[in-house]
Amino acid sequence: MRLEITKDSLIDAIQHVLKAVSTNNPIAILTGIHIEATTKGLIVTASNSSMKIQYTIAQDDRCMKVQRAGGIVVPARYFHEVIRKLDAGAITIEQLEPFILTIVSGHSRIRLSGMDPAEFPVTTTSSTSLLKLSVNNATLKTSIKQVAAAASTSETRPVLTGIHLVCQNEWLSLAATDGIRLASFSIPMDRQADLDADIIIPSRNLMEVARLLDEETARTEIEIGHHYICFRVGQVQLQSVLLEGVYPLIKNFIPTSYLTEIVVDTSLFLRAVERATVFASESVIRIAAAANQLDLLSRTAEIGEVHEAIPLQQISGDPFEIAVNGKFLIDLLRFMDSGYLRLRFTGQRSPIMIHPADDWSSALFLITPVRTTGQGVTTNERA
Amino acid sequence: MRLEITKDSLIDAIQHVLKAVSTNNPIAILTGIHIEATTKGLIVTASNSSMKIQYTIAQDDRCMKVQRAGGIVVPARYFHEVIRKLDAGAITIEQLEPFILTIVSGHSRIRLSGMDPAEFPVTTTSSTSLLKLSVNNATLKTSIKQVAAAASTSETRPVLTGIHLVCQNEWLSLAATDGIRLASFSIPMDRQADLDADIIIPSRNLMEVARLLDEETARTEIEIGHHYICFRVGQVQLQSVLLEGVYPLIKNFIPTSYLTEIVVDTSLFLRAVERATVFASESVIRIAAAANQLDLLSRTAEIGEVHEAIPLQQISGDPFEIAVNGKFLIDLLRFMDSGYLRLRFTGQRSPIMIHPADDWSSALFLITPVRTTGQGVTTNERA
Repeated sequence: MRLEITKDSLIDAIQHVLKAVSTNNPIAILTGIHIEATTKGLIVTASNSSMKIQYTIAQDDRCMKVQRAGGIVVPARYFHEVIRKLDAGAITIEQLEPFILTIVSGHSRIRLSGMDPAEFPVTTTSSTSLLKLSVNNATLKTSIKQVAAAASTSETRPVLTGIHLVCQNEWLSLAATDGIRLASFSIPMDRQADLDADIIIPSRNLMEVARLLDEETARTEIEIGHHYICFRVGQVQLQSVLLEGVYPLIKNFIPTSYLTEIVVDTSLFLRAVERATVFASESVIRIAAAANQLDLLSRTAEIGEVHEAIPLQQISGDPFEIAVNGKFLIDLLRFMDSGYLRLRFTGQRSPIMIHPADDWSSALFLITPVRTTGQGVTTNERA
Repeated sequence: MRLEITKDSLIDAIQHVLKAVSTNNPIAILTGIHIEATTKGLIVTASNSSMKIQYTIAQDDRCMKVQRAGGIVVPARYFHEVIRKLDAGAITIEQLEPFILTIVSGHSRIRLSGMDPAEFPVTTTSSTSLLKLSVNNATLKTSIKQVAAAASTSETRPVLTGIHLVCQNEWLSLAATDGIRLASFSIPMDRQADLDADIIIPSRNLMEVARLLDEETARTEIEIGHHYICFRVGQVQLQSVLLEGVYPLIKNFIPTSYLTEIVVDTSLFLRAVERATVFASESVIRIAAAANQLDLLSRTAEIGEVHEAIPLQQISGDPFEIAVNGKFLIDLLRFMDSGYLRLRFTGQRSPIMIHPADDWSSALFLITPVRTTGQGVTTNERA
């Protein structure tokens, strides 16, 4: 192997795949980055037991030129750190001895011990794919961020740490719930998919996909196989395992009727909840709607109290008062890009439904109220 | 107490004093921020056992107006968090009940439980000061950053965690050593000080002072008392305790002769040391000067090796080779603002002396070599 590459191109490739490196893996090969130089270009890959990220730099006389094909696995931490500290400009990478990478740049000459690329986990080929989709980056990013906020972080029920992806007819739906919160988002597909899909993707891996989606107008190619899902965004390819198990039926959690509906300004509501939650004992805040005003109140004996009032854009139904976990509500509201929200109260013990007011059909959020006994607070009811 | 203030002014004041708040102090009053409204302005103070920071906002119809004098101590964390989350604009702060602060902004109404201001530690008055000085901010900042890098972080010898400040004749000198590194910096004073000073200041507190020195052309007023030193920078006043004990005589560590002297480009040298240190076992790098080239080498059996070469601007004396701790060297070099450095080698077992090449008199750095036995590495020799 021998190639020339600019520092900026190489560091960009390394930083894209770094999140998939297993830093403390007992399997030494997985703490490394796989570098493969071919006549087509340079492929940089990192992989852990849950996902694999691959970055491809095409052969190009300006930024990268492969002079001799070959491959090696190098220790990710040392490789990243030493490349990062090189001066800007051209770097020559060459394998002169078995499993030793020589890196030359300016007056720096580095020899880095590597590992056998044959031991690195093989890329799943696309021949096993069941379904291929194409989604706009901005839409995919919004939906992942909004839905991932409701995924569980506890391993008690592993399926709940994932995001449920369903592809059916002309809709791609994402949903997650931790039993207290629920978020679901549907994306209309340009054309009807050939086959249906019903899979669970680790929420953390999807969050990594969201971080790749900077070019808002571009599209992500999605490929679903028997045991994996693969996202292709520009030069990056992220492949995630799927979680085994059956995802709970979201439909069963969604109330079919409501008592009161209000419309509020998203930003005013979020900021009021954030302030009320600062002083909230166990993050419990009280929300009361009456006439044209929504009141938020939190109180903790030794610290103090916060009272917030925000105007209601609309109200239909009776006044109500309910207690919720402010932190959970903030998580759901933070990534809302709709200017106004429609909140539906379905009862003291059943979830509050939240929809973007301007986008009725595609997004839905639920949050289960907290049962309070006077000043005291009891546990959340499980959905 | 009643006052009106803009959110920006108040948050600025809080963030300036926050570093002096004791977050986990068993003395509850020290986890608070003292707020005092007087006819002259608003004084915000935080204090821990080692330092006190005070921020003063003058009475001013635009940003702050005291309508009724008074004082209170509020819990720092909650006060900071809730003010930070308020919308931009005017805030009204008022004490209507004993030890309860009412904060009103827009539609937010907050009641925050406070503590008795009489229990808050008293400010040392300037009547006890022995010495007053005035120093340019940029010079003070540079000298603190360069010297603090050599201070010890271990509590084995508490005086070494401090910076030795000596004011004598027309010089203000700062020095620190952890036994392996030594840094000293002298600042010429505009006029001869009336009295001499010889004190030890906790290095961490001086680093806080350095962070306040953004306005480079302005000056810091320094006041030294029997048991404290006080820095006044713009609206901020930082008062630090002094460390008890006798600082080692720096002069004794400084070699009086040398074998070889070289001049190198500071930035090239720093970057080469940084790269060489990435692979260095126990951070030990070898430095060799010969002809017109300085070679840096580090090697670790399982990882690899780095070889750097940088041109010498000048060399006088014999070629030499020596081993040093790369991390310690980086700490010393990082804040050097001189374009070129003069390095003097005084022997295999005695410190390397480093001077800024363009500023001969005021700054001096020493680093003690590491004794190596072939490939193996032994401990640093103590200065």
